[in-house]
Amino acid sequence: MEFQQLIEKHAATLTEAIEANATRTFYAHWPEPPSGKIYGETANDDGLAQFKNRLNKPFDGLLQQGSDGTVGEEQSPYGFPLGITYPTWSADTLAANANQAQKQWSRLSPADRAAVCIELLERAAAHFFEIGYATMHTTGQGFVMAFQASGPHAFDRALEAVAMGYAATTYFDYSQTWTKPMGKISVTLEKRFHAVPKGPNCTIGCSTFPIWNSFPGMFASLITGNVTIAKAHPQVIYPIALCVASFQQTLQDLGLDPHIIQLATDTITQPITFDIAKHPAIKLLDFTGSPSVGAEIEAIARTDGKPVFTEKAGVNTVIIDSVENLDAVLDNIAFSIALYSGQMCTAPQNIFIAKEGVRQGEEIIPYEQVVQRFVEKIDAMANNEKMGPGTFGAIQSEATVRRLQRAAELECTILRNAEPCKQPGFDNARSYSPFIAEVPMVRPDIYESEWFGPITFIIPVQSFEQALEQVYKSVKINGALTTAVYTTDEGRMAAAEESIIMAGAPVAFNFTGPIWVNQSAAFSDFHGAGANPAGNCSFADLSFVTNRFNVIGTRIKL
Amino acid sequence: MEFQQLIEKHAATLTEAIEANATRTFYAHWPEPPSGKIYGETANDDGLAQFKNRLNKPFDGLLQQGSDGTVGEEQSPYGFPLGITYPTWSADTLAANANQAQKQWSRLSPADRAAVCIELLERAAAHFFEIGYATMHTTGQGFVMAFQASGPHAFDRALEAVAMGYAATTYFDYSQTWTKPMGKISVTLEKRFHAVPKGPNCTIGCSTFPIWNSFPGMFASLITGNVTIAKAHPQVIYPIALCVASFQQTLQDLGLDPHIIQLATDTITQPITFDIAKHPAIKLLDFTGSPSVGAEIEAIARTDGKPVFTEKAGVNTVIIDSVENLDAVLDNIAFSIALYSGQMCTAPQNIFIAKEGVRQGEEIIPYEQVVQRFVEKIDAMANNEKMGPGTFGAIQSEATVRRLQRAAELECTILRNAEPCKQPGFDNARSYSPFIAEVPMVRPDIYESEWFGPITFIIPVQSFEQALEQVYKSVKINGALTTAVYTTDEGRMAAAEESIIMAGAPVAFNFTGPIWVNQSAAFSDFHGAGANPAGNCSFADLSFVTNRFNVIGTRIKL
Repeated sequence: MEFQQLIEKHAATLTEAIEANATRTFYAHWPEPPSGKIYGETANDDGLAQFKNRLNKPFDGLLQQGSDGTVGEEQSPYGFPLGITYPTWSADTLAANANQAQKQWSRLSPADRAAVCIELLERAAAHFFEIGYATMHTTGQGFVMAFQASGPHAFDRALEAVAMGYAATTYFDYSQTWTKPMGKISVTLEKRFHAVPKGPNCTIGCSTFPIWNSFPGMFASLITGNVTIAKAHPQVIYPIALCVASFQQTLQDLGLDPHIIQLATDTITQPITFDIAKHPAIKLLDFTGSPSVGAEIEAIARTDGKPVFTEKAGVNTVIIDSVENLDAVLDNIAFSIALYSGQMCTAPQNIFIAKEGVRQGEEIIPYEQVVQRFVEKIDAMANNEKMGPGTFGAIQSEATVRRLQRAAELECTILRNAEPCKQPGFDNARSYSPFIAEVPMVRPDIYESEWFGPITFIIPVQSFEQALEQVYKSVKINGALTTAVYTTDEGRMAAAEESIIMAGAPVAFNFTGPIWVNQSAAFSDFHGAGANPAGNCSFADLSFVTNRFNVIGTRIKL
Repeated sequence: MEFQQLIEKHAATLTEAIEANATRTFYAHWPEPPSGKIYGETANDDGLAQFKNRLNKPFDGLLQQGSDGTVGEEQSPYGFPLGITYPTWSADTLAANANQAQKQWSRLSPADRAAVCIELLERAAAHFFEIGYATMHTTGQGFVMAFQASGPHAFDRALEAVAMGYAATTYFDYSQTWTKPMGKISVTLEKRFHAVPKGPNCTIGCSTFPIWNSFPGMFASLITGNVTIAKAHPQVIYPIALCVASFQQTLQDLGLDPHIIQLATDTITQPITFDIAKHPAIKLLDFTGSPSVGAEIEAIARTDGKPVFTEKAGVNTVIIDSVENLDAVLDNIAFSIALYSGQMCTAPQNIFIAKEGVRQGEEIIPYEQVVQRFVEKIDAMANNEKMGPGTFGAIQSEATVRRLQRAAELECTILRNAEPCKQPGFDNARSYSPFIAEVPMVRPDIYESEWFGPITFIIPVQSFEQALEQVYKSVKINGALTTAVYTTDEGRMAAAEESIIMAGAPVAFNFTGPIWVNQSAAFSDFHGAGANPAGNCSFADLSFVTNRFNVIGTRIKL
C-alpha cells in the first residue's frame, strides 16, 4: 500500500515542520484565533450546534469494534451534565485490535506514515470549534483557551512530534551497498536498516488538557510505527473521542485499519488504565496526570521494561528581583496565575520577593507595596465582568475546590480569599477567583508541594541569592514545568540561568505583555524538561521519539 | 576555555564520521592491519617491549587523585601472571573527582567536546601495539584480533559515538530570536537551548572486549557532556588503564581536568561495581557482561531512575537451508565459531539444519554429510599449526573451561570433543579447539541458554519453517546479538528477514569469504539491537546518545 499522492500533498507541511523544529523559529500550521475570517463565518455557530446536538445521547462515529458496554459520567464544570454515553472496551479487546492493526501500520514507510498522520490532523481540524466547546465543557477552560489549547496548539504539537519522529526514523540511510577494501580484494554487502516499532502505545490523558497533552505521545508513537490507544480521563472523554472518531473515519477512507488509533474509556470507580498499562501487548506508555497515578504507571513500566513518557506535576516558581516597570510585571504574573484558574501544569505557584522590596530603575518599591499592587491586579480582574470569567474559566474537579478550602485553613497570612465567580449564562458554574497567601520561608511544608488550582503563595526572602537557592532546591526536589525570573541585573540573570538550567528546568526572563510563562509554543519551546521530578520527557525532543523504535539491520553477501 | 585550533584540526574527521554514520557506508578512520607500513616499522617491536616493561611492577601514568590502595590479579590466559599492580579508589573518591570535573566539562560546547574527544583518541592511537599485547594477555585473544578489536575497531566505534552525539546535541539551533505575529502587534523573545548533561557516567567493562565494548558508552557520555568512569574488569585492567592514562595526560596537556575520564579498579572478591552504580553522584550506567550482573545493574538503574545501556548475552543462531557452495558456507561458519574460541558475544552457538539435508543447486546434500564436513573443517583448523592457535586464541576464564567440561557431560551426541591447543611460545596457555554436539529439537533445556565459549550445537529440524519459528522464539526469549541464514530461496529469505527483524535481531544472509557474522563494523552495523533480551541498547543509534542529555530552554523577553 502506498500513499504517493498523500505524500506529495503534505510534503511542504512536513518540510516546514522539520525545518521549524530544528531551527526553533516561530511556526504555526493552524492559526490560533477562533476567527470566522479564518475558519469560516459559520464555524463557531456550527461547532456550538454540533456540541448541543451531542448532548444526552450515545456518542456516534467511532468505528472501533468489540465494545462490551457503555460509560459516561461527564459533568460540565459550567454546571450541567453532558449526558453523553460512550462505548467501552476491555483491555484484552483493545490489545487484540491494536495487535491486528500493528501488523499493517508496521509495514508503512516513514514517508507514508508522515503523510497519513498529517492527513489525519488536517481532516480532524475541521472540527476545531466543536472540539473547543467539548473541551470547555469538560475541562472548564474558557472557550477561547479551549479552542486554542485543544485545537491549533494541540494540533501543532502533534505535527511537531510527527516532524521529529520522521527526522529520527529517516536519519540513517535505510539501504546501502557497503564495500570494504581489504588490500587486493574487497567484500561487498547489501545492507538494509529497519526502523522497527516497539509496539502498541497507550497514551493516558488528563482531565485538564485532554488533547494538548495526549497528541504528542500518540503522534510520536504513530510516526515511529506504533499504533496507539488514547485512554481518556473518565470525566473528559468527549474532546478526544471526537478526534479519534475523525481519525478512524480518515483511516478507513484511506483503506487502513481504523484500529490504528483507538479510544479507551472507563469510569472513576472502575478504572481500566492499569489493566491496559500492564497488558503484555502494550509496549509503550505515555502519561499525563497526577504524581500518584504517574508513579504507579512508572512502576508498571519499570517492572515490565516498557518505555514510559510522563508529565506529572511540579511546583512552579517566580522570583521578582528588579524590573523596568512593576505594573507590567505584575499584570503579566497576575494573568499567568489567573488563566484557567491555575489549572495549567505550567502556571506559577510560588512567588519569591525580597523583603527589602523590588528595584525599579533607581527606586526601591517596598515589599508590602509590591504585594498589595499584585493583589489589586487580581481584584481588578475578578471585578471585571468582561475579562474575569473568561480568564478564570471553571474548576474542572471538585477536588480542586476542596484544595481551595484547605488552603484557606493554612497557618499563613491570607492576602486574598478565593471568591465565587459568576460565569454568564452558567449560573451553576464551579468558578472562583484566585486565592493568595503569604507564607514564610520557614514553612516549606506548605509551599514545597503542588497546590493545583487558583492558589498562589508569596514568599518573602532575605535576598535574590536566597530565592535562587530555594528555586534550585525546589526544582531538584519537587520538579517544575516552568520558572520565571524578573531581574534587570545581568549578573543575576546569568547566575539564575546557569543555576536553574542545571537544576533541570526552563527559565523565562522578564516576561511582560502578551507572552506568559505558562505558554509553551510548539516547534520552539520544549515542554517538560525531562530532567526533574515533574516528568521524564519533553515535547518533543529527540529522545521523545527515539525511544519508540529500534534500528535493526539486514546484511546480504553479494 | 575554547578549542578553536583543535576544532579546525579535527573538523574533517568529524564531518566524515557524521556522514558515514548517516549513510552507513564503509568508513574507517584507523586502518585495521597491524602493519609496519601503516603504523611504523618498529611499532610492533616497540609495543611488545612496552608490554614487557610493564610486567611485574606498579602501573604508572595515571594522573588520578585520591587512591587508597592497590590491586592487581591479572593472569595471561597464555599462562603467566602479569604481576602489574594498579591504584584503586573508593566509590566516594571517584564520585567526588567526577563531580568536580563535571563542572568544567559541562561548560564546553559540543564542538569543543568533539574536538577534545577526537584528540584524545588520536593521541591514544599511538599506543595501538601495546594495547594489542595488553589485550592479548588479559583476554586471551590472538594478537591480530587483539590489535584490531582494542585498537582501530574500538577507536572507530568511539569516533562513531562522538559523531552520533555531536549530531544529536547540535540537531537543534541553540539560539533563536523568536517573533510571534499577533495581528497588529508581535512579541519577540530571545531563546537559548541548552543540552544539559545527565551527569557522571560509569561504564562497566567486560573481560573479553575491554576497549571495544567500553569506548562507545564512555564516548557517547563524553560527547553529550558527561564525565566518565571506566570500571575495568578485575582480571582485565591493563588495556583500559593504558587508554585512560593516555586520555588523562592529553586532558592535562589541554588544560582540562584529567578526572573527566577516570579508571575504577577492584578485585574479584571485593568488587566496587555496585557501590559505584548505586552512588547518587553517578547518573548514567553502561554495562557489558554477564546476564546475572547485568540484571543487577539494570535493577539498580530502575530503582534509582538512572538511564542504563546494557549488553548482556544471547543465543546466536544459524539456519543452513540452501547454498551455492556448501564448502564456502561451512568454512565461513567454522571460522565464526572458532574465532577467539566463541568468546565473542556475536559468535554463533546453535546451527539448525533440516534432517532432509541442504540443497546445493540441484543437489540435496544429506544432513549427515553436512555435519561431517563441518566437523572436518574444525578438525582441519585445529590441526593447522599456522592457523589454529591464532584463530582460537586462549580461554579468558577458568569458568569457560569448566563449561566445556559440563558440555562434554550433556546427554547429546558429541560430534567433536574440545582438545587442548598448543600456543607456540606459551606452553601453559589455556587454549582448546571447539566442542561440537548434536542436540535434538526436543531438548531446548540444553540449547536455549548461552554456552559461552567454544561450544556449538547442531540441531536437526523438520523444515526451514520449523527452524525459523525456533529462531524467532529464541530471539524473543533468549535474546541474540546475531543471526545468520543461508538460503538461496528468495521467498525464504524474505520470510526470514521479516520474522527475525520483527523478533528484534539483525540477520546476515549467505555470508561466505572474508566477512563473518561475528563482525560488526563501526559507522555501518548497529551492534546490539536494543530490541531483545540480549541488551537494551545499540552501538550507536540515536537513542544511545539522546538519553544522556536533556534540552532545556531559556526565554528572554526583548
